[in-house]
Amino acid sequence: MEWVYISDLHKYTGQKVEIRGWLYNIRSKGKIAFLQLRDGTGRVQGVAVKGECNDDAFLKIDGLKMEASISVTGDVRKDSRAPSGVELTINDITVIQNPEEDYPISKKEHGIDFLLEHRHLWLRSSRTEALLKIRNQAVISLRNFFHEKGFILIDTPILTGSIGESSSTLFSVKYFDMGNAYLAQTGQLYLEAACMAFGRVFNLGPTFRAEKSKTRRHLTEFWMLEAEVSFLENEGSMDLQEEMICSLVDSILSKNEAELKVLGRNTGPLKKITAGFPRIEYSEAVKMLDKLGKPVKWGNDLGGDEETILTEQFEKPIFVTNYPKHAKAFYMKENPENPETVLCADLLAPEGYGEIIGGSQREDRYDELISRIREEQLPESAYRWYLDLRKFGSVPHSGFGLGLERTITWITGNKHVREAIPFPRTISRLYP
Amino acid sequence: MEWVYISDLHKYTGQKVEIRGWLYNIRSKGKIAFLQLRDGTGRVQGVAVKGECNDDAFLKIDGLKMEASISVTGDVRKDSRAPSGVELTINDITVIQNPEEDYPISKKEHGIDFLLEHRHLWLRSSRTEALLKIRNQAVISLRNFFHEKGFILIDTPILTGSIGESSSTLFSVKYFDMGNAYLAQTGQLYLEAACMAFGRVFNLGPTFRAEKSKTRRHLTEFWMLEAEVSFLENEGSMDLQEEMICSLVDSILSKNEAELKVLGRNTGPLKKITAGFPRIEYSEAVKMLDKLGKPVKWGNDLGGDEETILTEQFEKPIFVTNYPKHAKAFYMKENPENPETVLCADLLAPEGYGEIIGGSQREDRYDELISRIREEQLPESAYRWYLDLRKFGSVPHSGFGLGLERTITWITGNKHVREAIPFPRTISRLYP
Repeated sequence: MEWVYISDLHKYTGQKVEIRGWLYNIRSKGKIAFLQLRDGTGRVQGVAVKGECNDDAFLKIDGLKMEASISVTGDVRKDSRAPSGVELTINDITVIQNPEEDYPISKKEHGIDFLLEHRHLWLRSSRTEALLKIRNQAVISLRNFFHEKGFILIDTPILTGSIGESSSTLFSVKYFDMGNAYLAQTGQLYLEAACMAFGRVFNLGPTFRAEKSKTRRHLTEFWMLEAEVSFLENEGSMDLQEEMICSLVDSILSKNEAELKVLGRNTGPLKKITAGFPRIEYSEAVKMLDKLGKPVKWGNDLGGDEETILTEQFEKPIFVTNYPKHAKAFYMKENPENPETVLCADLLAPEGYGEIIGGSQREDRYDELISRIREEQLPESAYRWYLDLRKFGSVPHSGFGLGLERTITWITGNKHVREAIPFPRTISRLYP
Repeated sequence: MEWVYISDLHKYTGQKVEIRGWLYNIRSKGKIAFLQLRDGTGRVQGVAVKGECNDDAFLKIDGLKMEASISVTGDVRKDSRAPSGVELTINDITVIQNPEEDYPISKKEHGIDFLLEHRHLWLRSSRTEALLKIRNQAVISLRNFFHEKGFILIDTPILTGSIGESSSTLFSVKYFDMGNAYLAQTGQLYLEAACMAFGRVFNLGPTFRAEKSKTRRHLTEFWMLEAEVSFLENEGSMDLQEEMICSLVDSILSKNEAELKVLGRNTGPLKKITAGFPRIEYSEAVKMLDKLGKPVKWGNDLGGDEETILTEQFEKPIFVTNYPKHAKAFYMKENPENPETVLCADLLAPEGYGEIIGGSQREDRYDELISRIREEQLPESAYRWYLDLRKFGSVPHSGFGLGLERTITWITGNKHVREAIPFPRTISRLYP
């Protein structure tokens, strides 16, 4: 008899098969028992009827605990009411392991701390499964987008000198007898070196922020997609981002219909994500916020609350461009039309989600870059190599970084980024 | 006029185009100058002839330094002698930036320390370009292999409790007021949790070893592909690895012919990598080594030298299976036929390269696993969640980890792993 995955069961209608997996629920009433089975590829109901099912096996059913691992043989029957389209009439059951203890995650409501403490088991819930399958598809879609355009993947280092956006939020590591290394907050500077070699490059890897933020938008370890392109200016970079986001949303709408349904995501707003994202200058955004009753002083960065209010005004993601120079990182190129601002753009997701991408054209002039490094009192020696890029064939170039968990949180209509990563790390969580 | 990438030039034969890139070499003799141009997508020769090329532009040529960034317009001509199949007859040149200093990397031989210190520029060399384009393709091929089979990508955490293979080689990080976190040496234990939820999972991310090894096979930060499969035993895991390696080698042979040529790789040995990798028990390998004049005491792990000698005896990669229990990690399943050994397999690459994969069936019994944890004096509390996996629906499962840089080093016929990663980290190198 063939051992098949639940996701393939529909191909075996009318046939006898074996499936192997876990029992995630059970309902038994005398002569009939309903076993809810999962194997990671899908979920299916198995029905055991006394007399039809092997007697020994039927007697065992009442003793089975949640999350018992079992092998089940049975006949595949079409069932249009079932989400999988099929049901299994059980002939026999082999128990691989029946837990001695009750499974800690029951049907009742658990607090988030309890669930996070049991993340290694919580992964098995239908909700987590749906979220992480969407994450899987998001990564496929993003990587394919860049590979198909001929971008070269450049895995940037995690262990770095004191290179980053803000030295106060660096995790530090003792590095042999060489002093401290720091966990990368971004691979951007390395991608800038690589884009002078390969033209168009990207990465997708973990990044780290030792930020004491305890908001629904922050993790200490998160994954970021970054791209960097030679001979590209800020406007062209926004075009590229827009195309990437549309392609990502499309791919999830088409490949993850079932998962979005499990999550109860209203897909209406996602279907409106088409090209033509509004591009609003920071100064204009400040005026809008003033009118919306959330005034911001010109010169300050926009916070989460401001982003929420702003994005609620639009159905599509919006670019907020040309922020004040001193609200942004040292490497952004001065705006020739207004030197108090830089050529940059943050992409804010709709429905109140806020920033999912930060990007800019990079300062490509040696003298301007070194004055910014000195103004910000950054350790010049750590940036020697970065400055070299402006000495040997500097070219206009732009790039951006997309926060993977924030993007997934928006697309899935979830509240908190912590569920969009398999094992979330926050300032108070390092386990499991 | 259209701006095109060098890799697309062959589509524009007979037409006038613009290309943008860098000058990596120049040869000028009076009335004719040969400009070697690159833009990351390819390399092409531009020919400027006095009288045909714009006069101002022609006069500028002699002053151009290596790695000047320029835009060139010209006519695309077929040239069967050129590696790109085309040549460019230059009409005009716009200089974007001409370096004031001489480019540090000249045609003369440089020591490896000098090159590594200038890795941000060394990326531009044809050799590094070829290696990293092969890395790019290797990652595409490996990820596709697993996605096509329905494996779910699970990005495992980098910041962890004291979970790993050997606590003496962990990098440690102060984690807020929670004590120390450690950089992951492997994501395996987390993948084991995930494979009980998703059935078949994989990851591909950076891993860290604070090992004081200074060999050609060691980096402190390297990328590892790991896969973990429920209901799979050691033999089936070897089948999967074999299929993955064949598919990887095939894809690089077919997609990276040009790059393998740049590297001078003899592809003969690669073409022999087909299914049917020999599987040799450790005890048998020890006997072979004895005969080869490199005796190993039964019970010790095989070192790099032993692996080199052993793999030189075979044209295909070989699996060495069932190592002594005490030479291997605590989580490997005891071999029921010989409890002094475990159900494991290392895959050794041919031509003397040695270990590229380590894998095993995992101990799925609670009692046996906890005794091994105690025997090895590992911190039990950090493994609480891992032990839970043996309490709630434990199933036979196996997995493996492939070292990406070692694999690329073998496939490219290179000597040292440090060139197979964009920014290598070794015990004495953290810059750039």
